[in-house]
Amino acid sequence: MNMKSAPAVSGKTRLYAILGDPVTHVRTPMVFNDRFRAEAIDAVCVPMHVHADNLRAMFDGLRALENLDGFIITAPHKQAAVALCDEVLDEGRLVGAVNTVRREPGGRLVADLFDGTGFVEGLRQHGWDPEARRIFLMGAGGAGNALAFALARAGAAAITIHNRTTAKSEALARRVQAAYPHCKVHAGPREPRGHDIAINATPVGISPGDPPAFDVSTLSPQALVADVIMIPEMTTLLAAARAHGCSVHLGRHMLDHQVELMFRFMG
Amino acid sequence: MNMKSAPAVSGKTRLYAILGDPVTHVRTPMVFNDRFRAEAIDAVCVPMHVHADNLRAMFDGLRALENLDGFIITAPHKQAAVALCDEVLDEGRLVGAVNTVRREPGGRLVADLFDGTGFVEGLRQHGWDPEARRIFLMGAGGAGNALAFALARAGAAAITIHNRTTAKSEALARRVQAAYPHCKVHAGPREPRGHDIAINATPVGISPGDPPAFDVSTLSPQALVADVIMIPEMTTLLAAARAHGCSVHLGRHMLDHQVELMFRFMG
Repeated sequence: MNMKSAPAVSGKTRLYAILGDPVTHVRTPMVFNDRFRAEAIDAVCVPMHVHADNLRAMFDGLRALENLDGFIITAPHKQAAVALCDEVLDEGRLVGAVNTVRREPGGRLVADLFDGTGFVEGLRQHGWDPEARRIFLMGAGGAGNALAFALARAGAAAITIHNRTTAKSEALARRVQAAYPHCKVHAGPREPRGHDIAINATPVGISPGDPPAFDVSTLSPQALVADVIMIPEMTTLLAAARAHGCSVHLGRHMLDHQVELMFRFMG
Repeated sequence: MNMKSAPAVSGKTRLYAILGDPVTHVRTPMVFNDRFRAEAIDAVCVPMHVHADNLRAMFDGLRALENLDGFIITAPHKQAAVALCDEVLDEGRLVGAVNTVRREPGGRLVADLFDGTGFVEGLRQHGWDPEARRIFLMGAGGAGNALAFALARAGAAAITIHNRTTAKSEALARRVQAAYPHCKVHAGPREPRGHDIAINATPVGISPGDPPAFDVSTLSPQALVADVIMIPEMTTLLAAARAHGCSVHLGRHMLDHQVELMFRFMG
């Protein structure tokens, strides 16, 4: 425990939370509380561990919590939360998932999704604007969905989506293509050859023995390889990409760059 | 904000809370968090502002909060909370109010009341064991109820209860008398004459212009005068008692001495 990294809590302190199952691994409380401390905001962000079958009860409780300004939602609740909010904004509706909820006075819950926007913002700030790039995206789950829509919206020229279950990558490609006709979106093999940016949006790489999520050897050394995995920071994929001469982009940037968006959204 | 008085919050941090309406004035988060810090316990206590008509929804939410170990209840929810818990222990059942709830795995809520026990413990540790004392108690509201039962249980010889609405002091006297036949309990006038300990358990003294809650001039200077009001610490009642030569006992001792009981109860 770092005794200096949280503000003191009093009866006047405003509340923020992160809901997940499990929740012990989340970094959001540290990131938020560091920020509250730096800006002398009297607020605290706490973890809330809630099982999927109790999510509705938890939401009703949070509606009743008058000093709560908002909360973050992580796995596995991002999709289920959509139906529990009073209003879901654009990105959340397109993707069918939310990760940030604003609690308005009276308990009204308004939500949106910032995973994809945060990822794109991270790329941009590291000099890799997705505009006009050809992108290989591995994974059509929650993170894959968020990234596909955000990359297309950011002006990517083409997105190739690979997923172990092909029906999922094909369905995602169709949805993104329909929303963003300018972008060539299709499902493809597990092969990043010919792409400018190759991204892992699957959990492959979290466990110590995991192989690289895909083979980087056919990529140009001018390409960027990105991972959404936060721990370990240097996944086997990123290590292989670096050894191959590619630039790499760490998973934590996705969170770092959406904190600003989350803060603005929750007020 | 005192930056050093709270532990850092991570995904592993256990939660405690205090529910009230309003909640901005409560001292519990500071007291609990200081203690967590002193004992290097990875836990945080946060204020939860909830309106009376949302209390049931909040309780259902807290049942769903897997990393919550317990919570404190303050005004105006202490009575309503009794019906919302799965089990209410002795003191809480007798008084008809609870202020401490333990959340057991699975979400079962077990509650008890420590206001009176905390007050008695504070008296004892300051050398004023209520056993065999004659006690004047002003107020038959929430605090008056808690103190009357706890003082009788601690062996007081007699308790005289005064309340603006006589029916309330008479009803309380009957309930305490029935539970503790050894103690002579009755309703009486606003007159502490002849008692060893005189206690204010009303809000009179909170507002700057308030007169003393009762007249101390008929008390023996050997008597003790106590107040349950925490802010201001030195109420007009206690100031008058001190000027009269009596010993005085501060409101904060009631909270200080129940923190240990609350901690033990919530595990």
